[in-house]
Amino acid sequence: MKIKYAIGVDLGGTKVKLGIVTSEGRIVKKISVPTLANDGPEKSIGQIKKGIKSLLKGNKKLIQGIGIGSPGTVALKKGTVENPPNLPGWGKVHLGKIISEEFKIKTHVENDANAAAIGELIYGSGKDLTSFIMVTLGTGVGGGIIFNRKLFRGDHGGAGEIGHITIDHNGKECNCGSFGCLETYLGNNYLVEEVRHQLELNKDSIIYKLLDNNLDNLSPKVIHDASLLGDKFSQNIIANLGETLGHGLASVVNIFDIANIIIGGGVAGFGRPLFNSVKESVKSRVLTPLKPKIKVLKASLKNNAGIKGASSLVFYD
Amino acid sequence: MKIKYAIGVDLGGTKVKLGIVTSEGRIVKKISVPTLANDGPEKSIGQIKKGIKSLLKGNKKLIQGIGIGSPGTVALKKGTVENPPNLPGWGKVHLGKIISEEFKIKTHVENDANAAAIGELIYGSGKDLTSFIMVTLGTGVGGGIIFNRKLFRGDHGGAGEIGHITIDHNGKECNCGSFGCLETYLGNNYLVEEVRHQLELNKDSIIYKLLDNNLDNLSPKVIHDASLLGDKFSQNIIANLGETLGHGLASVVNIFDIANIIIGGGVAGFGRPLFNSVKESVKSRVLTPLKPKIKVLKASLKNNAGIKGASSLVFYD
Repeated sequence: MKIKYAIGVDLGGTKVKLGIVTSEGRIVKKISVPTLANDGPEKSIGQIKKGIKSLLKGNKKLIQGIGIGSPGTVALKKGTVENPPNLPGWGKVHLGKIISEEFKIKTHVENDANAAAIGELIYGSGKDLTSFIMVTLGTGVGGGIIFNRKLFRGDHGGAGEIGHITIDHNGKECNCGSFGCLETYLGNNYLVEEVRHQLELNKDSIIYKLLDNNLDNLSPKVIHDASLLGDKFSQNIIANLGETLGHGLASVVNIFDIANIIIGGGVAGFGRPLFNSVKESVKSRVLTPLKPKIKVLKASLKNNAGIKGASSLVFYD
Repeated sequence: MKIKYAIGVDLGGTKVKLGIVTSEGRIVKKISVPTLANDGPEKSIGQIKKGIKSLLKGNKKLIQGIGIGSPGTVALKKGTVENPPNLPGWGKVHLGKIISEEFKIKTHVENDANAAAIGELIYGSGKDLTSFIMVTLGTGVGGGIIFNRKLFRGDHGGAGEIGHITIDHNGKECNCGSFGCLETYLGNNYLVEEVRHQLELNKDSIIYKLLDNNLDNLSPKVIHDASLLGDKFSQNIIANLGETLGHGLASVVNIFDIANIIIGGGVAGFGRPLFNSVKESVKSRVLTPLKPKIKVLKASLKNNAGIKGASSLVFYD
């Protein structure tokens, strides 16, 4: 069988990462260009074109399509990106149309969290699943819903905002303006802040040693390292994180009637202790018929998940 | 145009209500038989057959199909009802197959909350909507999701369990075993109990007069009556109820990216004050792009919503 190739474009606020990816999800060539977001959309689009052009050189005949993962809401028809956070001045940009006309190559644009879910569907942990809930733990908490091997987009392409379901309606205010959103408890910044507070009452945690008593450098990675060294405090943090995530996911499982969960993003690096805690928490809270069906899996696209997810749009369509 | 007819069967724990319904949702004939649930599934199925037979008498040629709304999870293929609450001993019953073989008429079975959503889609407030979230406020809080003019069933037919999304993960225990489910705050029994508590500190509420000081007869209807008479306490109860419901619905709106909400069931009788409160609450909490799109509508199938919803399955398919 002839190998098929796609270009994946991961459009970020500071960098555009691009790669040529096989239909098995292997990156064969990779580059990166600065987004120059502060110079406005024209400039950034120019950078995207520049990156694609460089990848196409000598390879154009092999490329089946271009996939772009973008922040913000995306309308499929013209690959229109709307108000992407971190890309000031974009408003509405028909990115898909612009790129496909430039290179005469079919171009697919999708929201980056949705692209990550499609990446797991096509290449990753969701390859053999009919439906799953994908959640990405990073600065924010993103998500995407795959139902019947299709992305569930909702009415305007914005479905799957798992980070903004409420787990405590009287809870902390979220950046989105609501209260007690899952992201408020699990976003990297909130997590680090919370742990810093708790460390004041846990002076015996190994974390102090690992950081030379300078908590300014506290990060999820340090918490993970400490937990691996047997630090009970850090192990508890991870278990509690999983439990809280499970409380939110149980609502999502109940309302979608989808029992498979895939977790990705930096914090997913906490590994088995996190996954076990999530699974137990979800099982304890979902409706009875769903309990035996719950599966919690680790995302398999790790490094370059952005490029791979974007490229998967070509093979998904 | 020739009028089309369907039989709708509303299978309840104590009564089976049946009717002949036009494709516009008008009931032209209606009967009811006891379910005799305690005598086991055979007996109850016999009762359903008896009811259908009586409706078919002299009308069989006109009937396009039979729709059955049932408690429990339903698998579409053989119209299989699984573990319906209130119907002891049912386990798995291939109800659709049994009825269609008996009468040689195409038979559709669906969960009753889902059937209510399809009823609004075919006959009611959802007639002109592409997608909506249907919520039914009764003893429990039920729901159904219509996306792209289709019922979203999830992987096992159980999607749309809006009553069992968590709004406070440290909240009260729910009948389902989870904590802080929406139903815990909005189910009729919880509501009445909560109001009874609050009345102890609100001795000037008109409710005392309306009930001759006997709070045993407290019901949503009495709260509504008092609010119409200008009782501030009752008006607050209704506004708070709407606010809480809005907190839960905001999560559902965010994750499905569906901005239309239809509210039915007894408590929907609270009318405009409830609806306004829900709308304001949802708008204040959903993600920014969704705020201007939020619509909150009253269900239009009121009396006999069960029969009508069930019959709509015939015209939906």
